Amino acid sequence: MQNQNNWDTIVAPATPHGQSAVAVIRISGKEAFQIVKKIWKGKELDNAKTHTLHFGKIVDSNNEVVDEVLLSIFRAPHSFTMEDSIEISTHGSPYIVQRVLSLLVEAGARIAEPGEFTKRAYLNGRFDLVQAEAVADLIASQSSAAHRVAMQQMRGRFSSKIKQLREQLIHFASLLELELDFSEEDVEFADRTQLLSLLSEIKKVVHHLKESYKYGNVLKRGVPVAIVGKPNAGKSTLLNALLQEERAIVSDIAGTTRDVIEDEITIEGITFRFIDTAGIRETSDTIEAIGVERARQKMKEASIILYLFDVNTANIEEVQDAIQEIENLNVSYILLGNKIDMLSEHSKLTAIQEALKKESQAPFMFISAKNEKDVENLKSELLKRVQQWEASLQTDIIVTNARHYEFLEKAEQALSQAEHGLLSQLPSDLVAMDVRATLHFLGEITGEITTEDLLGNIFSKFCIGK
Amino acid sequence: MQNQNNWDTIVAPATPHGQSAVAVIRISGKEAFQIVKKIWKGKELDNAKTHTLHFGKIVDSNNEVVDEVLLSIFRAPHSFTMEDSIEISTHGSPYIVQRVLSLLVEAGARIAEPGEFTKRAYLNGRFDLVQAEAVADLIASQSSAAHRVAMQQMRGRFSSKIKQLREQLIHFASLLELELDFSEEDVEFADRTQLLSLLSEIKKVVHHLKESYKYGNVLKRGVPVAIVGKPNAGKSTLLNALLQEERAIVSDIAGTTRDVIEDEITIEGITFRFIDTAGIRETSDTIEAIGVERARQKMKEASIILYLFDVNTANIEEVQDAIQEIENLNVSYILLGNKIDMLSEHSKLTAIQEALKKESQAPFMFISAKNEKDVENLKSELLKRVQQWEASLQTDIIVTNARHYEFLEKAEQALSQAEHGLLSQLPSDLVAMDVRATLHFLGEITGEITTEDLLGNIFSKFCIGK
Repeated sequence: MQNQNNWDTIVAPATPHGQSAVAVIRISGKEAFQIVKKIWKGKELDNAKTHTLHFGKIVDSNNEVVDEVLLSIFRAPHSFTMEDSIEISTHGSPYIVQRVLSLLVEAGARIAEPGEFTKRAYLNGRFDLVQAEAVADLIASQSSAAHRVAMQQMRGRFSSKIKQLREQLIHFASLLELELDFSEEDVEFADRTQLLSLLSEIKKVVHHLKESYKYGNVLKRGVPVAIVGKPNAGKSTLLNALLQEERAIVSDIAGTTRDVIEDEITIEGITFRFIDTAGIRETSDTIEAIGVERARQKMKEASIILYLFDVNTANIEEVQDAIQEIENLNVSYILLGNKIDMLSEHSKLTAIQEALKKESQAPFMFISAKNEKDVENLKSELLKRVQQWEASLQTDIIVTNARHYEFLEKAEQALSQAEHGLLSQLPSDLVAMDVRATLHFLGEITGEITTEDLLGNIFSKFCIGK
Repeated sequence: MQNQNNWDTIVAPATPHGQSAVAVIRISGKEAFQIVKKIWKGKELDNAKTHTLHFGKIVDSNNEVVDEVLLSIFRAPHSFTMEDSIEISTHGSPYIVQRVLSLLVEAGARIAEPGEFTKRAYLNGRFDLVQAEAVADLIASQSSAAHRVAMQQMRGRFSSKIKQLREQLIHFASLLELELDFSEEDVEFADRTQLLSLLSEIKKVVHHLKESYKYGNVLKRGVPVAIVGKPNAGKSTLLNALLQEERAIVSDIAGTTRDVIEDEITIEGITFRFIDTAGIRETSDTIEAIGVERARQKMKEASIILYLFDVNTANIEEVQDAIQEIENLNVSYILLGNKIDMLSEHSKLTAIQEALKKESQAPFMFISAKNEKDVENLKSELLKRVQQWEASLQTDIIVTNARHYEFLEKAEQALSQAEHGLLSQLPSDLVAMDVRATLHFLGEITGEITTEDLLGNIFSKFCIGK
C-alpha cells in the first residue's frame, strides 16, 4: 500500500443529481474496503484484484437490499487518488444514491468536500497543481478550443515549461546563495553576464506566457464581440442572423442537448459571445453617443467590435467619426455596411468605399444581414481574426487561468528587479532575494510551493465527487 | 459468445446531462469491441477479460486526445444486456460526452432508443417483463415504500406468483385441449370438480393481487390526502405545519438535495401527497358547498380526507352534515377539531365530543395546528391508516403497475367466464377458450406472451441509456 496517506475515507456522488440509467458513488481512503464490506453482499472483496468489476448487492442494517450494484475496485496506488478506492455504480435513482451515501457514512466514511478527490490526487503526487486545475477546466469546457487548451494543460505542457524555467534559475540561485556564505571574502561564483542573459531570457518567456492569457481566457469563456451602430442600422437583424443558425443546430443525440446559451455561437470550435450593448443602442441616437463613457466601457470589453451602418442612409462623416472613436479604444473591429439589398444607386457604395479606405486600415464588408452567404462570410472573418491572434502569440502554450497569470506577473516583476539589481551592481544578497522570489512565484503556479489556503481556494471550486 | 443476438451495436449516455466528476457512456452489441477499438488508445482489448477496468485515451480521427477515460469491459453473456458491452467513464463534461458519442456513431454504433438496453436484457432472457418494468420503477422511486415494492418486483416475487398460477392452469388446459381432439367420443379427461376448485382458487389470488393495486399505486405515487373544511378552519396553517418540518429536513449531503416537491411529506418512508383543494376552499363559504360536484370529485381522489373545523366557532349540525357527506364518499377520513389553543370554555369541547361520537365511528382529534406535538400525533394517525390498509390486504405481493392491473382484471374476467361455463356445462371448447384467454393474460404480465407494440410502449418510457 504505497503512497497511502493516513487520511480518513471520503465518499461522494460522482455523477449529476437526477434520474438516469446509472449513478456512480466514489469512495477513497485507507478504510475504503472495510467500509464498503459492511454494506456489501457479494463476492469476498479481500482478494479482489485492482481494476476489476464485481456484481452484488448493497444491503442496509436490516439486511434489506437497497440496490443491485457494480463495484469498480482500485487498489492503491493504482487509483485516481492513489489511495484504495471503490466506485459503486447504482441504478440512477436519487433516492438510492442518498440511501447508499447514508449507509457509507454510517459505516465510517465522510462526505467529501468539493474537489477533495482531486486534491488528494495532487497531494499524493499524481499530478501538479496546473494539471489539477486543468481537470476542472476540462469538465467546464464547452467548445473544442476550450477543450483543447484544458487538455493541453492536463497533459502537462505548461507545467513542464514552468519547471524548466525554474530549474535553469535554481542553479544560479544556489551559486548566489553560496556567495553569501563567503560574503566576507567578496567572491563571485555566479557569472554575472551569464546570469543577466538567463534572467532576460526567462523574463521574455514569462512575458510571452503572460501575454497569451488574454487570448487563453477568451478561448475559455468565448470571444467577446460587440455589435454597435446607429438605431436601424440592423444590429438585431444581424445578431439574430448569426444566432439563428446556431439555434437550429440541435443535437440529434438525445440526452445530450446543449444547455441553452443566449447570444453565443461556435465557429469551428471557437465560441463567440455577444456582449449586451443594449445600453449603447438606447443612447446612440446620435453618433456622439458612442462617446458616452458607459458605451465606451462596453466596447472595451470586446475582443472584436462590429460597427454596423446602413449604406442607404449613412452619413460618411458620421461613420468616419465612429471609426476614429473605435480606433482610440484599440480594439480589433470590422466595418459592416449593411442593407445592400435595399440599395438603389450603386454609385453610393463606391463613394463610401473610397471614403473609408482613406480613413482606416480595417477591413470593411458590404453585407445584407438577411443574406445567408454574407453572414457566412462575416463568420469566416470573425474566425480569421482569432486565428491571426493565435498566430501572433510568441508561445504555443496558452495560459487560461487567472491564478497562473497573477503569478506570472509577479515572477516577471521579480525578474525585472533581479535584472535591475545586477545592472546596478547591488550586493549579492539583494539579487539573491529577487531570484528566490521568482523561484517562489513560478513554484506556486505548479504547486511545488504551496499553502493550505491556496489549495482550499482552488479545490473548493471543483464539482462534488471530483 | 453465448446468447449474443445478431443485433446492431447501440450507444447512449447512462448518466444525467450536466457537469460532474464522471459521465458514463454505455455501448452494447456484437460490434462493441470493434467500435471502441477504433477510438481507443491504451492496452490491447482483445485479450482483456470480462469485468476488468482499463485506463487509456479516447482519440479522434486526427489522433487528438478527446479524454482520458476508464473502460469497463463486459463480455457476453456476463453483461446487463447479455451482449458484449463496454462502459466508458469520461470526465463529466457534456462537451466530452457529446464528442465521444459522435466518435462512436462514426465508428459504427447507433444511438440507443430509450430503454433499449433493458429491452435487450429482457429479450436475451436476463429477466421477465415485470422485472424489467421494476427497473424503471426503482429508478423513479422517491420514498422507501416505493423503493421497497419496486425492489420486490425486480427480485421476481410477483413474477413467480403469476408463473405459478399459470403452471397450475396449463395442466388442466392441456387436458381440455385433449378432450377437443377426442370430441366425437365425448370423453372428459379433465376432472370438472377439480378444475372448478382450481379456477376459483386462482380467481381469488388474482382478485387479491388486483385489489392490492390501489394500495400499490398509492405507495408509488404518494398517498393522496385532502384537507377540507370551512374557510378559517385553519387548513393552510395545518398544511404548512405538516410541510414546514419536511422542508427543514434539508439533506446534509451536498449534491443529493431532493428535488423541490410541493405539498408532499414523507412519514417513515411513506409519501403523503396533499391534493390541491383550492377549489373547495374558494366555494365552501357555506358547508353545503362541499356538496358541489367538483369538490366532491376532488375528495374522491383522496385516500384520506382530513376534515377540519374550528372548535371555537363550529356549528355541530354543520359538522354532522359534513360527516354525512364524507361518509357517502366512502373514503377514509379523520375529523380534526382545530384551534383548541384559543378555546375559552372547556365545556364546548365535551359537547362536540359527545355529539360527534353519536354521529360517526371515525376517530376525531382535537388539535392546535400550531402545536408541534399535535401535528406529530396527526402524522402518526396518517401513518396508522396506511399500515392498517396494508395489513388488510389478502396478499403480501403488491401490484403497482397499471398495465399489470389491466391484465389481472382481464384474467379475472376470463376466469369468471370459464367458471360460469363449467357450471353451465358448456361444451369443452368454449371453456378451453376461456382458460386459454386466462393463460394469455397472465402471460402478458410477465412477458411470456408478448407483442412488439407492447414492448415498444413499455420501454419507450425508460430513461435514455437504460
